[in-house]
Amino acid sequence: MSAEQTKERILDAAFREFAEHGLAGARVDRIAKSAECNKNLIYIYFHNKEELYARVLDRNMAHVFASFPFTAQDLPAVARHVFDRARVKPDVFRLLAWATLEHTEAAMPPARKREYDRTLALVREQQESGAIRSDAAPELILMSVLTLATAWAPVFPFGEAATPDSGLSPDTVREQIADMVGRIAGQTTKAGN
Amino acid sequence: MSAEQTKERILDAAFREFAEHGLAGARVDRIAKSAECNKNLIYIYFHNKEELYARVLDRNMAHVFASFPFTAQDLPAVARHVFDRARVKPDVFRLLAWATLEHTEAAMPPARKREYDRTLALVREQQESGAIRSDAAPELILMSVLTLATAWAPVFPFGEAATPDSGLSPDTVREQIADMVGRIAGQTTKAGN
Repeated sequence: MSAEQTKERILDAAFREFAEHGLAGARVDRIAKSAECNKNLIYIYFHNKEELYARVLDRNMAHVFASFPFTAQDLPAVARHVFDRARVKPDVFRLLAWATLEHTEAAMPPARKREYDRTLALVREQQESGAIRSDAAPELILMSVLTLATAWAPVFPFGEAATPDSGLSPDTVREQIADMVGRIAGQTTKAGN
Repeated sequence: MSAEQTKERILDAAFREFAEHGLAGARVDRIAKSAECNKNLIYIYFHNKEELYARVLDRNMAHVFASFPFTAQDLPAVARHVFDRARVKPDVFRLLAWATLEHTEAAMPPARKREYDRTLALVREQQESGAIRSDAAPELILMSVLTLATAWAPVFPFGEAATPDSGLSPDTVREQIADMVGRIAGQTTKAGN
């Protein structure tokens, strides 16, 4: 196995470990075991647990943003994409929730900062063109989209975790959230997009 | 000091420790030191770390709900209360975020379950009376209020933590969030309540 392949295996194993246990709770031993490599190799490639963690966060944040187009002219569609993503790949959001809670500097890795700047610019552009109402701060518009789209995910406290007996189907939840985002942004919803 | 006073000190110290470190990361040693009591006393009163944690969660969730009236006829006002609470007492929300992330059963303690049931009934009542739009699930209305009202808090990933340079004042954020909640619920906002 090449060095690059080994690094990939380590990053994948580290992602699973950090998503499950956070930074403080993660064990390099377990990462080595899961990646089927020698523990020393992890230190040789990534120096320490913190640097490995920063790499994992940066890499996975970049994946999330790259996984769908940020169509600021249709924020309900963005909410649907993020909602689906949080269902299919909940671990990225677990990773992010841990990072915020453990208030590590790594919570805002370069990839995430870059995507935020890009995305905020898209929101501002649509506010200027009148496609998003202009009397709300773009930061709060973006916050509301991401917060609502992920709120039902079990990793956050006010969604399904709080009301497990609601009987709501994922489709219903997704469409109602998309509708809420449309109301906030002043955009109409094109259901089932 | 009476047994009751000692228990109070332990519960207060445990709250701070769990809010900072979560369940797995919390140390009974530190709780004993901070409460200035013998570690054995903690086991005598609360049996183990898990039971102590459950008590702390239940107690503090009850405090949050008791700290303001849940005026379902004016959800923007509820959002303002929760927003202020999350600023003044962020540790309760840290505790809740940890509990959700560590997927402990204690995340839904009796006090929280009880308040959720009561609060959902109030939302339904206002939906029937026409004061909240009736085409959204009450669980999602409640989710949107709590999620948006706390989203700016540093313990959650899409608010100030993601856009630290926004320059938005807490007052501005609070009023814009209250306005968003009003749009979602179909209620108008009475600013500055």
